[in-house]
Amino acid sequence: MFRNQYDTDVTVWSPEGRLLQVEYAMESVKQGSACVGLRSNSHCVLGALKRSVSELSWHQKKLLEIDDHMLVGIAGLTADARTLAKYMRNECLHNKYVYGTPMPPHQLMADVADKHQRTTQTYVRRPFGVGLLVASVDPLTQKPHLYQTCPSGNLYEFYASAIGARSQSARTYLEKHHETFGDASRDDLIVHALQALVGCVSGDDELTKENASIGIVGKDEKFTLLEGDALQPFLDRLELKGGDDDEEEAGDDAAAEAEPMET
Amino acid sequence: MFRNQYDTDVTVWSPEGRLLQVEYAMESVKQGSACVGLRSNSHCVLGALKRSVSELSWHQKKLLEIDDHMLVGIAGLTADARTLAKYMRNECLHNKYVYGTPMPPHQLMADVADKHQRTTQTYVRRPFGVGLLVASVDPLTQKPHLYQTCPSGNLYEFYASAIGARSQSARTYLEKHHETFGDASRDDLIVHALQALVGCVSGDDELTKENASIGIVGKDEKFTLLEGDALQPFLDRLELKGGDDDEEEAGDDAAAEAEPMET
Amino acid sequence: MFRNQYDTDVTVWSPEGRLLQVEYAMESVKQGSACVGLRSNSHCVLGALKRSVSELSWHQKKLLEIDDHMLVGIAGLTADARTLAKYMRNECLHNKYVYGTPMPPHQLMADVADKHQRTTQTYVRRPFGVGLLVASVDPLTQKPHLYQTCPSGNLYEFYASAIGARSQSARTYLEKHHETFGDASRDDLIVHALQALVGCVSGDDELTKENASIGIVGKDEKFTLLEGDALQPFLDRLELKGGDDDEEEAGDDAAAEAEPMET
Amino acid sequence: MFRNQYDTDVTVWSPEGRLLQVEYAMESVKQGSACVGLRSNSHCVLGALKRSVSELSWHQKKLLEIDDHMLVGIAGLTADARTLAKYMRNECLHNKYVYGTPMPPHQLMADVADKHQRTTQTYVRRPFGVGLLVASVDPLTQKPHLYQTCPSGNLYEFYASAIGARSQSARTYLEKHHETFGDASRDDLIVHALQALVGCVSGDDELTKENASIGIVGKDEKFTLLEGDALQPFLDRLELKGGDDDEEEAGDDAAAEAEPMET
Amino acid sequence: MFRNQYDTDVTVWSPEGRLLQVEYAMESVKQGSACVGLRSNSHCVLGALKRSVSELSWHQKKLLEIDDHMLVGIAGLTADARTLAKYMRNECLHNKYVYGTPMPPHQLMADVADKHQRTTQTYVRRPFGVGLLVASVDPLTQKPHLYQTCPSGNLYEFYASAIGARSQSARTYLEKHHETFGDASRDDLIVHALQALVGCVSGDDELTKENASIGIVGKDEKFTLLEGDALQPFLDRLELKGGDDDEEEAGDDAAAEAEPMET
Amino acid sequence: MFRNQYDTDVTVWSPEGRLLQVEYAMESVKQGSACVGLRSNSHCVLGALKRSVSELSWHQKKLLEIDDHMLVGIAGLTADARTLAKYMRNECLHNKYVYGTPMPPHQLMADVADKHQRTTQTYVRRPFGVGLLVASVDPLTQKPHLYQTCPSGNLYEFYASAIGARSQSARTYLEKHHETFGDASRDDLIVHALQALVGCVSGDDELTKENASIGIVGKDEKFTLLEGDALQPFLDRLELKGGDDDEEEAGDDAAAEAEPMET
Amino acid sequence: MFRNQYDTDVTVWSPEGRLLQVEYAMESVKQGSACVGLRSNSHCVLGALKRSVSELSWHQKKLLEIDDHMLVGIAGLTADARTLAKYMRNECLHNKYVYGTPMPPHQLMADVADKHQRTTQTYVRRPFGVGLLVASVDPLTQKPHLYQTCPSGNLYEFYASAIGARSQSARTYLEKHHETFGDASRDDLIVHALQALVGCVSGDDELTKENASIGIVGKDEKFTLLEGDALQPFLDRLELKGGDDDEEEAGDDAAAEAEPMET
Repeated sequence: MFRNQYDTDVTVWSPEGRLLQVEYAMESVKQGSACVGLRSNSHCVLGALKRSVSELSWHQKKLLEIDDHMLVGIAGLTADARTLAKYMRNECLHNKYVYGTPMPPHQLMADVADKHQRTTQTYVRRPFGVGLLVASVDPLTQKPHLYQTCPSGNLYEFYASAIGARSQSARTYLEKHHETFGDASRDDLIVHALQALVGCVSGDDELTKENASIGIVGKDEKFTLLEGDALQPFLDRLELKGGDDDEEEAGDDAAAEAEPMET
Repeated sequence: MFRNQYDTDVTVWSPEGRLLQVEYAMESVKQGSACVGLRSNSHCVLGALKRSVSELSWHQKKLLEIDDHMLVGIAGLTADARTLAKYMRNECLHNKYVYGTPMPPHQLMADVADKHQRTTQTYVRRPFGVGLLVASVDPLTQKPHLYQTCPSGNLYEFYASAIGARSQSARTYLEKHHETFGDASRDDLIVHALQALVGCVSGDDELTKENASIGIVGKDEKFTLLEGDALQPFLDRLELKGGDDDEEEAGDDAAAEAEPMET
Repeated sequence: MFRNQYDTDVTVWSPEGRLLQVEYAMESVKQGSACVGLRSNSHCVLGALKRSVSELSWHQKKLLEIDDHMLVGIAGLTADARTLAKYMRNECLHNKYVYGTPMPPHQLMADVADKHQRTTQTYVRRPFGVGLLVASVDPLTQKPHLYQTCPSGNLYEFYASAIGARSQSARTYLEKHHETFGDASRDDLIVHALQALVGCVSGDDELTKENASIGIVGKDEKFTLLEGDALQPFLDRLELKGGDDDEEEAGDDAAAEAEPMET
Repeated sequence: MFRNQYDTDVTVWSPEGRLLQVEYAMESVKQGSACVGLRSNSHCVLGALKRSVSELSWHQKKLLEIDDHMLVGIAGLTADARTLAKYMRNECLHNKYVYGTPMPPHQLMADVADKHQRTTQTYVRRPFGVGLLVASVDPLTQKPHLYQTCPSGNLYEFYASAIGARSQSARTYLEKHHETFGDASRDDLIVHALQALVGCVSGDDELTKENASIGIVGKDEKFTLLEGDALQPFLDRLELKGGDDDEEEAGDDAAAEAEPMET
Repeated sequence: MFRNQYDTDVTVWSPEGRLLQVEYAMESVKQGSACVGLRSNSHCVLGALKRSVSELSWHQKKLLEIDDHMLVGIAGLTADARTLAKYMRNECLHNKYVYGTPMPPHQLMADVADKHQRTTQTYVRRPFGVGLLVASVDPLTQKPHLYQTCPSGNLYEFYASAIGARSQSARTYLEKHHETFGDASRDDLIVHALQALVGCVSGDDELTKENASIGIVGKDEKFTLLEGDALQPFLDRLELKGGDDDEEEAGDDAAAEAEPMET
Repeated sequence: MFRNQYDTDVTVWSPEGRLLQVEYAMESVKQGSACVGLRSNSHCVLGALKRSVSELSWHQKKLLEIDDHMLVGIAGLTADARTLAKYMRNECLHNKYVYGTPMPPHQLMADVADKHQRTTQTYVRRPFGVGLLVASVDPLTQKPHLYQTCPSGNLYEFYASAIGARSQSARTYLEKHHETFGDASRDDLIVHALQALVGCVSGDDELTKENASIGIVGKDEKFTLLEGDALQPFLDRLELKGGDDDEEEAGDDAAAEAEPMET
Repeated sequence: MFRNQYDTDVTVWSPEGRLLQVEYAMESVKQGSACVGLRSNSHCVLGALKRSVSELSWHQKKLLEIDDHMLVGIAGLTADARTLAKYMRNECLHNKYVYGTPMPPHQLMADVADKHQRTTQTYVRRPFGVGLLVASVDPLTQKPHLYQTCPSGNLYEFYASAIGARSQSARTYLEKHHETFGDASRDDLIVHALQALVGCVSGDDELTKENASIGIVGKDEKFTLLEGDALQPFLDRLELKGGDDDEEEAGDDAAAEAEPMET
């Protein structure tokens, strides 16, 4: 990463046609704890690693409810994520109040992405320092959708994805297994999400019912959060599969994670 | 490209009478995946290379519907393009609501170009980092028009054009064949668009029904998007023509692509 | 801590994806005198070291009443803390006036945290230079909650916490004993708070009824402030326990106190 | 041209009493393709060299209609010119709507010049990077007028003028013949305009019906644009005169073109 | 005091978590002539050294009336002090007009301190360069209060205090005697104030009825200003005590005066 | 003229108490072509050297009518002058419309001078780069007045004055003869104005009816402009006086022209 | 006077607690021609040295009428002074219109001083570069008052004062004689003012009826301006006293004139 006079102002183009401040903001996403998302034809599941500030604190929430049919997983600056989640909740409430129906996810995501874009084109603000994985069910079609935002204002739709620290390991797992996700049962999806998280735990720690968190939305099923003891049955199934993943190779994390701002 | 104190502020002229920040923004267009456009006397066709962030993501949309008679192909910052497309859709809706008729394309394009120009004359924003190819049919005359925008605020009308990475190859093809486009059938136009895209695919990849995308507007014909299996018949015709193009020479990409801001 | 061109403007990202001005503001919290907080199932207690500007001045208030069910302990810039406390009092008054009920603490804390976040995303202001420990009882459930804010806009909920100068010693104490807090009596909680403060007193000074301050909110119990003679009975119990703490080790203060902005 | 700390901000005077940013903007006019204007006692004619971005594009418009009695030829940034032309059209429409008469050209030109001046006295914008030749007929007196604007906000009235790249050759021709313009016929004026353009064509190119463009307003005659085949009769007359111009000497372009901002 | 890139903008934190511009503003307080304040259980007295610009000028006012129950002594920029005093007077008038009662001093002081704080958190203004000693009597309880402001926005309540040049000498005197102030008579308080001022007079000058100024508010007693001949009886008592103070030691002025911005 | 960090911002004082940007703006006045003014007891006459951009252009107007009783001669940036003249015309129209009487010249000049002053005290604009000589007759007293403005916002009243390039020669002439102006006839004043201009013509050029321009306002006489053939009779008288001026010495132009901003 | 990074922005404190830009603005006052003021128990007199730009110009006004009971003498930037005088006249008119009484001088002076202060606390403007001596009579008490303003926003009341170039000589004279001013007659006061001005005349010039100017307000006496022949009788008395002043010593001008911004 080269550094020069073009990288301290978000409204300044580098001679190569890049916005370096936006790229730096994207670095902050890689420093949050990992978050994974995947979907079948009927459900969308998010899994996240909760990070505890100290033994005395509650774990920080990594999965935030937006509405009955939508939840958000975050990696990056918590404060920025909370602000965005608040905006999304307000939009959902407003839509229900004005139109009497739940907010269509694709429409909300376009608004959220535009909110990101604006911070990249004016010099009075900074780009957001957070990436969001959004699990949702379309209120009309009852189809699950998994969206991912980026500080650049880009918006992606994924079959399965992972963001945050050490998320390359999760992506490798997801790529290997994603063809089976379409018809997977609700429970199998949860196990896949947890299994993908295993490699994202730092150092000698393990994935436990204390640091894992699962959120589910699905066809005709409202938002459910699974934490603590409710996770144990799924974690138990996980251990049976452990050996299978050992042979995976992490690859080059930085390269794999690079998402171009252009398309 | 020389670098100096005149190139970090969009409102500062260089002693040579150039706006370097605007020129840098034009570089970002060359980094998007390719997009081609061409028109006959009755139809206007856009073709684009979809770029996938990962195996797990959906391909990014490269062709965006604006209205029944207008669609946009993009190269450059996706988030900027989405913002501009949203603006264009709103203008079309507004025109229909207020005047009861579809938005005249030349009028909308002048507004879009002015929107670009403003970002080049004030210091609080940055120039947009995207180029648009706009295929449209005039609602009054039912004539097709192909427009192209530039971060500088310039607006061009083309018989055929190509923007984005490795687009010089496509331009060479289009220049060679453009005299036959006027009376070409709808299907032939599509094949020409795909053939022009062949040389824009990077490295060892090929043009397939997965990464190609075609959009059509025409006389008395509403916007149609062709993707996936619907493209295969056209791709099949393409392969028969492959040998013919091998002898083309790419020329000097940078030089050929240079579009002067002055006229 | 490295220093460079990225650390003088709050809206500028460093190439590593950090906001250095926000991190510098977090340093000011470590320079205030210590403040500790802890909760049982029925009460929430704050303890603070009052700092006197001179022999002639009154001790500066370290515990500020917000409402009957909420009080704030501060470490960092006093003037910033006073401004925030004023805002919180006004919100509580406004809620009572409009809805007829006390302000729900979690809602107020989200607003306060957003107020922090905004100062980190615009260039016309600076991040707040203060950390708050907020003891509160939910007016609906009558459950005690202990919140902690950070200049970054992060918001934490704790079982027990300590901020300010020499607070590592207090955290060590709290971690050792926190499992007994849940069922502790109101009086025991107060003694724990004072005991945690003992190690935070600077140099050769001692914890006395002059420099200590205790604030309590609890189930069906309005805000109480204990200072001066009212503290003596608790300080007397404290001395009996003194020897027990001598064996504690302070650890590495800086490392332990580092709170990541990402999650 | 010397460079220093006084030349990057439009509101900063150099110690010599010059505004260097305004002078730099004037450089951009010299980089547009040439445009010439001349008037008799009854007509005003503009001639311009169209520049084509590529074989596939339409030629860029160099002559823009403002109203029945007014047209504009441009050299410099196209996007700035389009913005100014839009402003002029709106003023003309507004004048017709409010007063029921066509806009008096001298009044509109004073407004356009003031619009330029404002961009040279405030730091939030940049000076326009375009020069305009405006051919008009006064709606009251039916007399033709030829105006020229400058990025500095200066406004000139000319008998004949030429701006843009290689325009010195055209000025030399116009100076040699201008005494015969007063009583020249409409057709002769057009031939003079084309003849003046001959020397402005770059390199080995020639003036053809493809790259030339002529616009005419006159006494009791609405705006006419001559392009393509309609130009051929005039180009044919031109070739008969070719030898006559060979002996002209171009002189020192830069010196001759220097227009002082002071008077 | 170290100097670097962090000390020229009030909204920039130094890596140590300090706001250096605020600290520099605090230096200006130390350059004003001295002002002392002290209170008994019934009265609050301010004493100040008037500084004369020249033999021909009136002495500058150092004690400014705010209302019947409140007066201000100043050290630092006179113009800033006058602006603040005007604000305080207006608030008092407004309170009387709206509520029919005198402004409660603690409420006004909180507003004044917030006014200071705001100048430290926005980049368009500078921190105030003045310290205020405010003597007041609470209109409800009729208890005297002595407040002190600081450019940082900090607000202190004191039993006795001194600010300005050479004020350390006064503080030493006040610390020695402050235990007797509580029950001191109105006249004794005045003598104490004058005695404290003796050491603040510069060089070979003496405290005289010309350069001293005393202001008093008290229980059921409106604001009184003592100057000139009215001071002589108190100055006469003063001389009897002169020898007693010779043995005081000034100590380290800078260290003693340092008021931390954090608490 | 020394150059340093204090001379690029109009709101920055140099340590010597000067505003260097204002002084630089004053330099631009010395670069315009010359303009002279003088008054008798009944008339006020302006004379100016018109400068032609090219053989093909009209001469630039140097004398601008403001109202029947007021005209302006300019030296410096033409665009700034035109803006100021427009403002003055509008004020005159407004005064007539609202009060039914012509604008008193001294009042308008005070407003114009304040308009200049404001550009020297705010950082968003630059000082005007033009000097104005204003000839006027007071509508009430019918006395002629000659005013001169300066970029600094200073306003002078003169018996006779000259500004612009080579104006020192004119000032020398005026100083020599000004005692005879009071009772001079209208025609003699005109000859004096032309004679003063003779020395201001550059190089080998001469003062002719093409480049000279005279404007007159007088007691009970509306604004008259003399140009072209109407000037010849006066120019003929001029030549008879030519030898008389040869012996004048120009003196030190820069020194004589220096007008202090202070008084 | 030391120079550094703290002296180019009016809102930046130097580490010593000084505002250097304000101090630089104070330098401009010392460059204006001298102005003196003095008062008896019944009258207030201003005397000023008029400075003429050239032989052809009128002398610049140094004494400006504000109202019947108030006049201003200026030293420094004339344009700034004129702006302030205009503000003062408007305030007087407004007061008369709204309250039916003349503006109380002390109230107007406080407003003027606050207007100065504001320019020292915001970064968009510069401090005023002028000092004012204001002679006034209180409309209620009919007592004369002499005020002096400073670019810092400080406001002084004087028995007698002098500002501007070479004013130290005048101050020395005033200090020597000021004890006799109280009961001096109107005529004697005028002679004293003129005598004080004698030493302020530059180089070999003399004080004459052409360059001197006297303004008087007094008990039951409206503003009077004495200039030209009306001054001669007083100047005649002056010469009789000439020898008496020869023995005065100027002292150190800079040191004597230094007015601290703090009090």
